[in-house]
Amino acid sequence: MKVLHSIAELRAFRQHAGRVVFVPTMGNLHEGHLSLIRLAKQHGDSVIVSIFVNRLQFGVGEDFERYPRTLAQDCAKLESVGTAAVFAPAEDALYPNPQQYCIEPPGIANELCGKFRPGHFRGVTTVVSKLFNIVQPDVAIFGKKDYQQYFVLRDMVLDLNMPIEIIGAETGRAEDGLALSSRNGYLSESDRAEAPRIYRHLSQLRDAVQQGARDFELRCQQVVADLAQHGWKVDYVEVRDAHTLGAPSATSTRLVALIAAKIGNTRLIDNIEIQL
Amino acid sequence: MKVLHSIAELRAFRQHAGRVVFVPTMGNLHEGHLSLIRLAKQHGDSVIVSIFVNRLQFGVGEDFERYPRTLAQDCAKLESVGTAAVFAPAEDALYPNPQQYCIEPPGIANELCGKFRPGHFRGVTTVVSKLFNIVQPDVAIFGKKDYQQYFVLRDMVLDLNMPIEIIGAETGRAEDGLALSSRNGYLSESDRAEAPRIYRHLSQLRDAVQQGARDFELRCQQVVADLAQHGWKVDYVEVRDAHTLGAPSATSTRLVALIAAKIGNTRLIDNIEIQL
Repeated sequence: MKVLHSIAELRAFRQHAGRVVFVPTMGNLHEGHLSLIRLAKQHGDSVIVSIFVNRLQFGVGEDFERYPRTLAQDCAKLESVGTAAVFAPAEDALYPNPQQYCIEPPGIANELCGKFRPGHFRGVTTVVSKLFNIVQPDVAIFGKKDYQQYFVLRDMVLDLNMPIEIIGAETGRAEDGLALSSRNGYLSESDRAEAPRIYRHLSQLRDAVQQGARDFELRCQQVVADLAQHGWKVDYVEVRDAHTLGAPSATSTRLVALIAAKIGNTRLIDNIEIQL
Repeated sequence: MKVLHSIAELRAFRQHAGRVVFVPTMGNLHEGHLSLIRLAKQHGDSVIVSIFVNRLQFGVGEDFERYPRTLAQDCAKLESVGTAAVFAPAEDALYPNPQQYCIEPPGIANELCGKFRPGHFRGVTTVVSKLFNIVQPDVAIFGKKDYQQYFVLRDMVLDLNMPIEIIGAETGRAEDGLALSSRNGYLSESDRAEAPRIYRHLSQLRDAVQQGARDFELRCQQVVADLAQHGWKVDYVEVRDAHTLGAPSATSTRLVALIAAKIGNTRLIDNIEIQL
């Protein structure tokens, strides 16, 4: 496995990499990421993984500085699952100057997580576009755990005619249902015990909707109340149309229930798709 | 020469086109465009020319509707200079839905022409990014007649790490100095006779600066006054640093003098580079 730090090295490697499947990450890799790599290997000749903690997508007061940088451990894990190359640029390789040209996403980027993280999705679309232009992958894989991110990037690729196939990977979970996330490492023991509550609520929402419930607003309010009662600070609990991320309509064929909430100082997000 | 209308046709053609040099245009081609094609042929195996009148870069009240569509004549000219393929998509091929994701340029896009054409450069960066993603050229050529456009696109490519070499082509001119432009076709006979005045002023500005003049502001004001006296409605007359398009500084090594002004109902722009 090659570990490449410069854009020039990456481009030279890419020349002979065949059909490339790309998995962008911020590092601090866990089993959820490794399942993305395993999926990636089924879709091309070479899997390229980027590791870059992207300052642009962190807001003021967020965890950019304390986000764990664990390159050596990450590379060992990536090698064990058959990654062809890791692209781990220094910050000034991607941002030699303050970024001037940005990919401005539409209004959906200001809803759900975007409402609580202004500019976050512009930071994501911009860095992913840059990485796409550097890696020039045939396929890119994003985890559905960050559902809105997956949605925005898939739409961006279509809307800007990028020649890349986007695949969404199912969320990896602990045995108790908690979605695997780098931020789980921030949880205290008692918060870790409490954390699976959001997946339990999502599962119950899915079951109720599949049994015919359509009182989304009331049910979401009840979830908010229950989470608050158990010490969570809730950003949102929503049911949306999975194809548009807008409000569900009578013609929706697939929905998605999404939760974002803080336990202690740690913000967790999760979601579940609901086939109708 | 292939004339391709769909993105799928273009992508199929591109597979076997070798090193591609791309020349995006809005059609209504004149000798200035043909000189870009001749330059393009020196830089790769296949020259692909797009013809697309891009609604996104026209403001309210601008000439989108009356902009001449002359595809048959354009194709005859392009074939005569050895173009490999013309990409002429219908509007709904590039914009099947209203464009949602845009390439947002930095503040320079709100100066010079951008000040008088709000949103113009966002329309340009967005459509050119889409065309780049479709054509995937190795090289792209832009005329320096639209100097700010050339500057913005060159900067965008660097800033977003697009794997494309940008070449600026010198401005083609009529014998009396008037820069070749599709919009010259709008000029009445008397306006056409008056039109070369802006190039005469640019040449005089260049000569004066090369002989040591540094009173840019005063000289530009004098040009504005002279143009106004001859019936022009002036948008701007400016001397800028050619590397930054910002104000000239003591360390500037190359300047550019730029004029945008209307004669009759026709807005003309021109510029001249000044090596110090």
